[in-house]
Amino acid sequence: MASDLRPPEHQVAGHRASTDKLGPLVDGEGLFYKPLQAGERGEHEAAFYAAFSAHPAVPPSVRDAFFPRFHGTRLLPTPASPAGAPYPHIVLDDLLAGLPSPCVADVKIGACTWPPRSPDPYVAKCLAKDRETTSALLGFRVSGVRVVDAQGGAVWRPDRSELKAMDTAGVRRVLRRYVSTCDGDGDGDGLDCALAAAVYGGEGGVLAQLRELKAWFEEQTLYHFYSASILFGYDANAAAAASAPGGGGGGVRVKLVDFAHVDEGEGVIDHNFLGGLCSLIKFIGDIVAEVQRCVLANVTHKCHQMKRQLFERGNFTELPVT
Amino acid sequence: MASDLRPPEHQVAGHRASTDKLGPLVDGEGLFYKPLQAGERGEHEAAFYAAFSAHPAVPPSVRDAFFPRFHGTRLLPTPASPAGAPYPHIVLDDLLAGLPSPCVADVKIGACTWPPRSPDPYVAKCLAKDRETTSALLGFRVSGVRVVDAQGGAVWRPDRSELKAMDTAGVRRVLRRYVSTCDGDGDGDGLDCALAAAVYGGEGGVLAQLRELKAWFEEQTLYHFYSASILFGYDANAAAAASAPGGGGGGVRVKLVDFAHVDEGEGVIDHNFLGGLCSLIKFIGDIVAEVQRCVLANVTHKCHQMKRQLFERGNFTELPVT
Repeated sequence: MASDLRPPEHQVAGHRASTDKLGPLVDGEGLFYKPLQAGERGEHEAAFYAAFSAHPAVPPSVRDAFFPRFHGTRLLPTPASPAGAPYPHIVLDDLLAGLPSPCVADVKIGACTWPPRSPDPYVAKCLAKDRETTSALLGFRVSGVRVVDAQGGAVWRPDRSELKAMDTAGVRRVLRRYVSTCDGDGDGDGLDCALAAAVYGGEGGVLAQLRELKAWFEEQTLYHFYSASILFGYDANAAAAASAPGGGGGGVRVKLVDFAHVDEGEGVIDHNFLGGLCSLIKFIGDIVAEVQRCVLANVTHKCHQMKRQLFERGNFTELPVT
Repeated sequence: MASDLRPPEHQVAGHRASTDKLGPLVDGEGLFYKPLQAGERGEHEAAFYAAFSAHPAVPPSVRDAFFPRFHGTRLLPTPASPAGAPYPHIVLDDLLAGLPSPCVADVKIGACTWPPRSPDPYVAKCLAKDRETTSALLGFRVSGVRVVDAQGGAVWRPDRSELKAMDTAGVRRVLRRYVSTCDGDGDGDGLDCALAAAVYGGEGGVLAQLRELKAWFEEQTLYHFYSASILFGYDANAAAAASAPGGGGGGVRVKLVDFAHVDEGEGVIDHNFLGGLCSLIKFIGDIVAEVQRCVLANVTHKCHQMKRQLFERGNFTELPVT
């Protein structure tokens, strides 16, 4: 199995594995291998996964729905260490397994990405990033996106510097682009948001899942998830099919990842994560509401046209009120 | 009217007016006069009140329930400027008017007390305070408290340095002390929380009001309330009467104050205030739930005692199951 390990082609954030660099790997059979981060972080993340997986106060429904399943740690020979110097990896469910054309977004949650008791230099470094990016202002920042076109297979993936420089309008646009089937242009924003109803809206959509997650964060005082991300994933083809008349749910995935800076909650809720989550919910809710308004306006317009045609053909003696 | 102006005796935070210092004044007839803060802050706060009072997108129910009514600004001779140098004051409803024995708490909301676009030295100063106090950790800090005993009239008011040095356990204790009729002691915490049900719980209580406020903050994108406080107020006698069997509501007040650092929302929710508010709701909800558990345990215990007495007197042939 180890011989089939390869960097995930849909990776949108973090270091990419290569012949001289460690990075995450997938086995193509549903597992994801994340090399332990340097220093204490890697050990801290592995310890979090071990503790969280067994914590009796975490509702199984929350753990199963919103966290990758943890399969322990494993020493692996890696492309970066071919000569028998195995490196420890955290083994997790591959969150995008089974999606032939995965569309991914990585959103780092929280206005503040540093645990309150961090040393000053680390605070200064993180604070600068939080203020340069949208974290401080919006309570989250988009760390990575990848969108595949269901038709032609073209991939849209803005580079890291582009994402870092993004302002509020840019975030709004990228969240619309994530559920659009075209690239858009300068006028208006030209994005069709054709998949918004299937991916963001509906029963199993992103919005419903985020609201479920929010309900847990309003109560849970076990952990504070500094610098963690929410990963969205959907399949371009499945979402397109779900968007067609009569289509079902799009199998949308919403998962928390990146736990190198998780803190003990000590009886206090994670107000930093919760605030950012509520902000993200508002952004996505606004997109869903706008798409619904457009659909309604379209229907109203078409109804009016049909009535006018009937009136012009003489079916009515006066134009019916729309 | 101006001749009757005096410093409010129940002031718990901010500078106190004296012969050589500006500070808030009340006229005893329902109005509160807040001297404009130095520099841009005072102008900024007055401008906020003027804009907010007239903003068509602010629901009147929210404005009336949670904000002091604004009566413009007025130049006033003050104790600090007796020789005809009037100073501009913001005129507001006195939030504690009509409470003969006001019990007050001032809770500064938000893990972060500085608007994101503030200059670096201001950020550094605020950030240090946010980390030294409980703001960063809890998403709020208690800036002032005053509790009057309904019986003897004794006042409990911790001083500022004590409040600044408070940790999570201290915050929990002070929020319990705020609704207790005794001082408590070292064992357990000795606080009776006798007024918790009347002040925090119930239909018009603090918790219900905070949840209503939260619903607005989940949607509103007009303003970001950096460094603002929530002021709680209740009357010691009214709360004691409400806590007695058959007592009604305690006339509890929950109001936002201190708007010198309010920012435009620009279409984004105030995730910083909302996160802190949710944390405060959890703290107060925990107190209400614990008091309810104690009441239930007491009732269960009393029932058991009564049944045992009846059994011992021979009314039952065996002890009934509780």
